Amino acid sequence: MIKPIDLKQITINEGFWKEKIELIKDKVIPYQWKALNDLLEDTEPSHSIDNFKIAAGIMEGEYHGMVFQDSDLYKWLEAVAYVLNIYKDSELESKADEMIELIGKAQLPDGYLNTYFTVKEPDKKWTNLKDWHELYCAGHFIEAVVAYYQATGKSRGIEIASRLIHHIESIFGPEEDKMKGYPGHEEIEYALIRLYRITKDEKALKLAKYFIEERGKEPKYFKNEAQKRDDIIDFWERANKDYAYYQAHKEVKNQEVAVGHAVRAVYFYTSVAALAAETGDRFWYEVSERLWENITNKQMYITAGIGSSEYGEAFTIDYDLPNDLSYTETCASIGLAFWASEMLNYTIDSKYADVIERAIYNGTISGMSLDGTRFFYVNPLEVWPRAVENRHDLRHVKPERQKWYGCACCPPNIARMTASVGRFMYSSIEEKNKIYIHQFASSEAEINLSCGDVKLNQKTNYPWDGDIEIDVNLGKALTFSIYLRMPSWCKNKEIYINNKKIDESEVLLRNGYVVLNRLWNNGDKIQYNLEMKIQRVHSNPKIWRNAGKIALQRGPIVYCLEEVDNGSELTDIAIPKNEKLRGEYNPDLLGGVYVIKGTAKRSKIKTDDLYFGGENELINTPIIAIPYYAWVNRTPGEMLIWIREM
Amino acid sequence: MIKPIDLKQITINEGFWKEKIELIKDKVIPYQWKALNDLLEDTEPSHSIDNFKIAAGIMEGEYHGMVFQDSDLYKWLEAVAYVLNIYKDSELESKADEMIELIGKAQLPDGYLNTYFTVKEPDKKWTNLKDWHELYCAGHFIEAVVAYYQATGKSRGIEIASRLIHHIESIFGPEEDKMKGYPGHEEIEYALIRLYRITKDEKALKLAKYFIEERGKEPKYFKNEAQKRDDIIDFWERANKDYAYYQAHKEVKNQEVAVGHAVRAVYFYTSVAALAAETGDRFWYEVSERLWENITNKQMYITAGIGSSEYGEAFTIDYDLPNDLSYTETCASIGLAFWASEMLNYTIDSKYADVIERAIYNGTISGMSLDGTRFFYVNPLEVWPRAVENRHDLRHVKPERQKWYGCACCPPNIARMTASVGRFMYSSIEEKNKIYIHQFASSEAEINLSCGDVKLNQKTNYPWDGDIEIDVNLGKALTFSIYLRMPSWCKNKEIYINNKKIDESEVLLRNGYVVLNRLWNNGDKIQYNLEMKIQRVHSNPKIWRNAGKIALQRGPIVYCLEEVDNGSELTDIAIPKNEKLRGEYNPDLLGGVYVIKGTAKRSKIKTDDLYFGGENELINTPIIAIPYYAWVNRTPGEMLIWIREM
Repeated sequence: MIKPIDLKQITINEGFWKEKIELIKDKVIPYQWKALNDLLEDTEPSHSIDNFKIAAGIMEGEYHGMVFQDSDLYKWLEAVAYVLNIYKDSELESKADEMIELIGKAQLPDGYLNTYFTVKEPDKKWTNLKDWHELYCAGHFIEAVVAYYQATGKSRGIEIASRLIHHIESIFGPEEDKMKGYPGHEEIEYALIRLYRITKDEKALKLAKYFIEERGKEPKYFKNEAQKRDDIIDFWERANKDYAYYQAHKEVKNQEVAVGHAVRAVYFYTSVAALAAETGDRFWYEVSERLWENITNKQMYITAGIGSSEYGEAFTIDYDLPNDLSYTETCASIGLAFWASEMLNYTIDSKYADVIERAIYNGTISGMSLDGTRFFYVNPLEVWPRAVENRHDLRHVKPERQKWYGCACCPPNIARMTASVGRFMYSSIEEKNKIYIHQFASSEAEINLSCGDVKLNQKTNYPWDGDIEIDVNLGKALTFSIYLRMPSWCKNKEIYINNKKIDESEVLLRNGYVVLNRLWNNGDKIQYNLEMKIQRVHSNPKIWRNAGKIALQRGPIVYCLEEVDNGSELTDIAIPKNEKLRGEYNPDLLGGVYVIKGTAKRSKIKTDDLYFGGENELINTPIIAIPYYAWVNRTPGEMLIWIREM
Repeated sequence: MIKPIDLKQITINEGFWKEKIELIKDKVIPYQWKALNDLLEDTEPSHSIDNFKIAAGIMEGEYHGMVFQDSDLYKWLEAVAYVLNIYKDSELESKADEMIELIGKAQLPDGYLNTYFTVKEPDKKWTNLKDWHELYCAGHFIEAVVAYYQATGKSRGIEIASRLIHHIESIFGPEEDKMKGYPGHEEIEYALIRLYRITKDEKALKLAKYFIEERGKEPKYFKNEAQKRDDIIDFWERANKDYAYYQAHKEVKNQEVAVGHAVRAVYFYTSVAALAAETGDRFWYEVSERLWENITNKQMYITAGIGSSEYGEAFTIDYDLPNDLSYTETCASIGLAFWASEMLNYTIDSKYADVIERAIYNGTISGMSLDGTRFFYVNPLEVWPRAVENRHDLRHVKPERQKWYGCACCPPNIARMTASVGRFMYSSIEEKNKIYIHQFASSEAEINLSCGDVKLNQKTNYPWDGDIEIDVNLGKALTFSIYLRMPSWCKNKEIYINNKKIDESEVLLRNGYVVLNRLWNNGDKIQYNLEMKIQRVHSNPKIWRNAGKIALQRGPIVYCLEEVDNGSELTDIAIPKNEKLRGEYNPDLLGGVYVIKGTAKRSKIKTDDLYFGGENELINTPIIAIPYYAWVNRTPGEMLIWIREM
């Protein structure tokens, strides 16, 4: 069975991700803590901790905030757990312990846990699964305590979660006497499987499977519960469209294309993949795979952004990928990476790890400023600020990252993804003595195989350099296989073992991985050199807006033009086909980035005419492209990924 | 004083416009009549005539329809009037007479006229000028009866209108005891000036001037009237934006850029220009001119479409001209042409006539199918049907023209513009013995000058051919000037008088018009040959979406590619810079059009990859471009005006 390497056994020790993780630890988590304690100025108070105190009976007052406010605390807790995997911080750990105790006190004797309903609407529990996020909050709590247990070994949270799950399981399920509900916002399905992996509590797995299978069945639960509430709303007239928003238009096993709210969708599909991985049931893999193929081949931006419409924050149709109007929520790309990692737990194929790489270096971390203080929900691929500020259909796009939001989903999601980025890097099949290296970063990993324990020491300047060095540390010589992902962007590679080049004809490739199977000795050194060239990427002509345009990519990094480097009217810039683009690493720019430079063309005339005949004379113009994720960390202005080629 | 030639004195006798006018007479007006009488299947009943009958006390029943339903009948009446200018049709004329009588019976003794308030809400008259369209309906009535009087000489409608105006004038005006209201939807201002031109009733002109001047003053009338109604609405929190929607954010004399609802805006600006023309007051001309320059130099599509946002059906900001998201309502382009014609009544400048030409051959008539039965409100410059059908932000765009709408503004507006298209063609300054020919069409015009009467007989195959022949018919030899517009698209012209070429160096150009000043003899023949080449039009680089693209134009006609001729993925097509485009008139296609042909490039590979590296190999592809106005009269599909150039 394929197994990701436990985060406790991975140490990211320098470079790109180390710096990002430190930012989470030093900036984001303390900021988030202030938010939870209502200590931030100019921001809506969270009230989340107070709500728990009131529910626990240790404070007087009223509930405040959104119906899903509990999840603010849970998301902080999950990020904290990942940081504690990496750093000893007893102060932080005791804060977290205290919060778990508080949460436990807010739990009702029957196991129910949700402060909104406990404090404010005790009679309305479980009456509106579609909108009221009880199961969503439960899911975030479960994910948090799973992560916290893995980091600290402390099981208090798991106990609370188990009681909560047993309570939920007593109400919902396939049995005749139970309600046939499922969450409006998927999240708990995956959380339950994650919990099952620790507790082996069959009830958790069964409940997850029930939620996955029940979703979309006729008669529709959301309609039934609304009728019970006597809700007279227009929801039902628009039902088909609305059910699709929730991925509840039909059973997932019959879904062919990804639809509806993109974050909900990928959280759901992640759970389907996890169910496949956990049960080994190919049926669920195929359900997941069909949706995976639809998204990644027809509905995904080059940044791994998904959700091309603001309306419903949703998928639209195949090849509809406008660069300015997109929603491409940070959380959706994060969810896509989680999903990919669960696909890799079922089967090894580099296409999943390729998408993880595309996501973690582009459309996810673009959501956070380089100093860790400002955030994007929406990650468009081009921005003309004046339009964004004046067009109603672009009002969801912000020309600059914003401070913490009242409805805070993306910032804590970046925190938990970044602090746990190690989860994407390694996996193994212990019984078959196979190790997979999916992602490249300076790190140490301890991996237990049947034949014995392996410690790998990976050194690289990735993503700025494709050279990767791996030291194999062993107690004794062992025979096992190391699988190294060959990224889809890489055309040429070289492999050396102990400084001896392996002839290309002898390199075995399996599902996109280079296979190195041999008797390894302690101290063996692998050099895996990926040729990292500046690439011009074209789009399928079916993508209406990208015709005649290229995106610049180098390694996994997608580039963009910014006004601060290239002047305004960025769409006027065209890169000649024969222009030799060059680049260099600039340690002083944007925290250290490789920039791409070249000479392009733009209009000579600064005409006042709106339209004009005759030749549009062109002149040379120097251009500088920077990594997309780092845009608008200097003077705000226009930004463009897809550049005209001529 | 510049004066348009009366429609009674112009006969359009063959060619492009003759055919369109016949369509209005034979198809649109009968269809409209059925709509008014609720005889159409599958369409919301208009109930407009019944409302009048109920108000007149000759029928029992309740009011139905929108608050501005009266204007349905008025718009039909105006179009009928223009048709009666051209064709004798006693049956149609007696229907119209009957309707005017009916309207008269629905008028209250004090002159008030609006069936919604008479029948349904008699206590709410004049309590919500912002939304309830009383003055708008009055305006359409006045325009209708002015046109009807001009066509038939019958003054019954004018009498009713005069009583209505005196009633309105007794309520609204600058005097202390009068209310300081003005319409939410501008229309009456221009109507009043048109009426004044016939009746010379100073009260009408004064009221128009009052409405124009009062608009936007502090304190805001719309706010005051809402407070009087005790309306607790969020309007006032969003007030500044909302006032701009109505062009009421500040006094028009202080407005620098066009804002808000595009149809309202151009109806309003038309009245400002007409006020300048009527009073000769340069102040109002300059107010109008400033807004004209803003729109035509910064906010106008190449089709003369205006209003680049669906939200508020409105202008946005300079150079924000997306081709897919635009609203570009048929009515707005029609209003733009009306406005231009009033600018020409103040001063002669070919730029106004150029915009009229751009509007009447492109963004207005695109609103009607070639058979006169289906209509567009929204005239985008590119359409990808699958996106239009699936994206919420494109839901206003229709991939095909629709049947008559419940809220019918554009179809009757096309009818009145087309049937009165002669209004744009000629004007004169009688006392200076000058004749202006603004637009070219086979037509006869009788023009009275101080020196005597002139009859011009214009023969041309315009817009498919730039050769224009004009016969001058006179009772006796007369000295006067003929000004021939030199269209901005034309680079070379030849002029012959009585077959003798006038040397280019001797041709006098004034404000974009060729001046022919001489002693004319009966039977003199002018040949005015405008070189009509296929042109590649570029955009100002500030238009974000049009960079690297060209529009094809020949004469006044803007071209487009349609899927039915060119296959799908139209944006993938690129026209090489050195490709020699050619064309031909095809009498059998789309009612007879000149088509443009050439060889372009498109992607060779039909890849399944969403993104791919390496070269995007191109192949030759034949292309056919057709006039934009005629698109989607065959198999529906993709459409594109701005084509990539390479």
